[in-house]
Amino acid sequence: MDYAKESLKLHGEWKGKIEVVATVPVSTKDDLSLAYTPGVAEPCLAIQADISKSYEYTRRHNLCAVITDGSAVLGLGDIGPEAGMPVMEGKCVLFKAFANVDAFPLCIKSKDVDEIVNTVYLLSGSFGGVNLEDIAAPRCFEIERKLKEKCDIPIFHDDQHGTAVITLAGMNNALKVVGKKKEDVKIVVSGAGAAAISIIKLLLSAGYKHITMCDRTGAVYAGREKLNWIKEEMAQVTNLEKKAGSVADMLVGADVFVGVSAPNTVTTEMVKTMAKDPILFACANPTPEIFPEDAKAGGAAVMATGRSDYPNQINNVLAFPGIFRGTFDVRASDINEEMKIAAASALAELISDDELSAEYIIPKAFDPRVGPAVAKAVAAAAIASGVARI
Amino acid sequence: MDYAKESLKLHGEWKGKIEVVATVPVSTKDDLSLAYTPGVAEPCLAIQADISKSYEYTRRHNLCAVITDGSAVLGLGDIGPEAGMPVMEGKCVLFKAFANVDAFPLCIKSKDVDEIVNTVYLLSGSFGGVNLEDIAAPRCFEIERKLKEKCDIPIFHDDQHGTAVITLAGMNNALKVVGKKKEDVKIVVSGAGAAAISIIKLLLSAGYKHITMCDRTGAVYAGREKLNWIKEEMAQVTNLEKKAGSVADMLVGADVFVGVSAPNTVTTEMVKTMAKDPILFACANPTPEIFPEDAKAGGAAVMATGRSDYPNQINNVLAFPGIFRGTFDVRASDINEEMKIAAASALAELISDDELSAEYIIPKAFDPRVGPAVAKAVAAAAIASGVARI
Repeated sequence: MDYAKESLKLHGEWKGKIEVVATVPVSTKDDLSLAYTPGVAEPCLAIQADISKSYEYTRRHNLCAVITDGSAVLGLGDIGPEAGMPVMEGKCVLFKAFANVDAFPLCIKSKDVDEIVNTVYLLSGSFGGVNLEDIAAPRCFEIERKLKEKCDIPIFHDDQHGTAVITLAGMNNALKVVGKKKEDVKIVVSGAGAAAISIIKLLLSAGYKHITMCDRTGAVYAGREKLNWIKEEMAQVTNLEKKAGSVADMLVGADVFVGVSAPNTVTTEMVKTMAKDPILFACANPTPEIFPEDAKAGGAAVMATGRSDYPNQINNVLAFPGIFRGTFDVRASDINEEMKIAAASALAELISDDELSAEYIIPKAFDPRVGPAVAKAVAAAAIASGVARI
Repeated sequence: MDYAKESLKLHGEWKGKIEVVATVPVSTKDDLSLAYTPGVAEPCLAIQADISKSYEYTRRHNLCAVITDGSAVLGLGDIGPEAGMPVMEGKCVLFKAFANVDAFPLCIKSKDVDEIVNTVYLLSGSFGGVNLEDIAAPRCFEIERKLKEKCDIPIFHDDQHGTAVITLAGMNNALKVVGKKKEDVKIVVSGAGAAAISIIKLLLSAGYKHITMCDRTGAVYAGREKLNWIKEEMAQVTNLEKKAGSVADMLVGADVFVGVSAPNTVTTEMVKTMAKDPILFACANPTPEIFPEDAKAGGAAVMATGRSDYPNQINNVLAFPGIFRGTFDVRASDINEEMKIAAASALAELISDDELSAEYIIPKAFDPRVGPAVAKAVAAAAIASGVARI
């Protein structure tokens, strides 16, 4: 199917992929008096007396804002807020279909960190949580950090953390397949954007030790010239031997490659220089850093991509719906590292030791167990880590 | 029925009165590829090339933001954004039920005019229109004016203009009942808030000539001490004889009283001093400026209130759903005076000369002809006045 042509045609017929519907009747005078004035004054007063009641008397408990500035939409780049909307509506459709979360898209006409932060903050009383989407790095890190400080509702940047959760899940299972330990493996991450940074941070949180990050210039290390603030920060916790060189240089002897960068960054020859049974997650989309055929020709033992036409797809829909479901189920004030690690473990554990293989380290997008399993694990981790509010 | 008690109980069961639903399927890989990535890139690019396509490929064409700062909610006053949400959700329910408009509530945590304006402006690319709600006067006027200047989508403050449209409709019919002319009648408006100001402006736009506005201190006139900017402005176009005095003083010899102020402002004795066949619209809610029984004892010929248990209810649901329906149907860039006057005429004309009586000057809230008639008239007026964009 020509997805581009067919999708454009369908979008013209659909005229929007979400709808706001009423869940209460207003067909009689009494209906009006209960759902609206004068009866509605009573829940208003109850919330005024105790703002937490807004989770009981309004839709807030199940409502996620999907927020973008349109600056890093899909692989299309900075296409502006209105043009980002079809993606945001699509995201809201997935939230609803996969986890019954009501999600509403808001595209902000600004690229200014503080203006975006203030806008979201001013709206935060209307939502139960915020999903940031397709905001360019490194602005997205600052926006997320500031929002987490200012808001009392969970803030989640899916491009970072969703991808990281699924990568961690797949990595845990891939290591089982090749019989290596997370403490030992040497990991090379190609990319320095939102996803790369978050993957590295989550792998470190989960107990992985030896990670080197490569940007377009090569390996990032403390003291390298012209590093921006986020790379400086990463250089404190990665590549502690301060190795310099290209991705090809770093791959020599490495156990794992994680690509969230650009097409065709890795060659068969480079895979041959890696340690025995190398694992490659090549997530650039639609053209990966290396195609599975080429990686296997170089000896790859386990291979994952972002594509649905190869095994082991890193697909964010495996994580964000269940994560928000679990978060909302216990009214968590944050989506913290513990909750993300729990989500990754739940995903990984859906595949039994019997089923586990190089071709099946990550559950499939439409596996109906995924959403509930992730939600349950996330809710439990929220309670255990003290951020649940019911 | 004890509406307060029952409404609180129901709100606890409903847990929100609106829901965001998906209108497209995502149950197969192909579905995902069309509604989301990779297919969705195509409508994104089409919108990037021509932002007006956002009305064709996203829900924007039917989507109204219902915006409040929670500062003047119902008769409850400044209860804050979260506590205002049950009313805003109720409003969204009415938009959907009466005119199939998707409306989404946003409560802004700010009382600063420029901050509210900027927030709404930054979100304006995500909506087809904005309905401002329950924002205190005189801040609401400034917010509306600035938003109209900045945004290319229609901005409508229902507390002002919805009430004004229905008042004008009722007034036109009331004059028919008593056989008086709009050019001749002397009108006293009690109140200086959002509704009062807008009613006066719309009556003037529609050809009414002799209006006096009274605030708590009495008649407003040019040169009176300590007038705020909006009252100064109104003093230029009302009470041109610069009469001073109380509401009671102003009512002597007046043809019409319009109350959007406080309970029990008018007595039977005061009605007796008005001109022959006086008309009284006493819209304070739930206790009007004067009850119909008392007004009639003073000789009132026509009486309207905000209550559903008396004839002639001034109920905003008669106007705003159809106004936005008509506005969206022709993608109007504004909701202007012509469109409001057209809405009022359409409402008034739904009552035939045969049906018209002192007890029936305004259509009933559940009259199914209302929404479509208002929408049709508003769309036609938008086209005629040059603000329609399709």
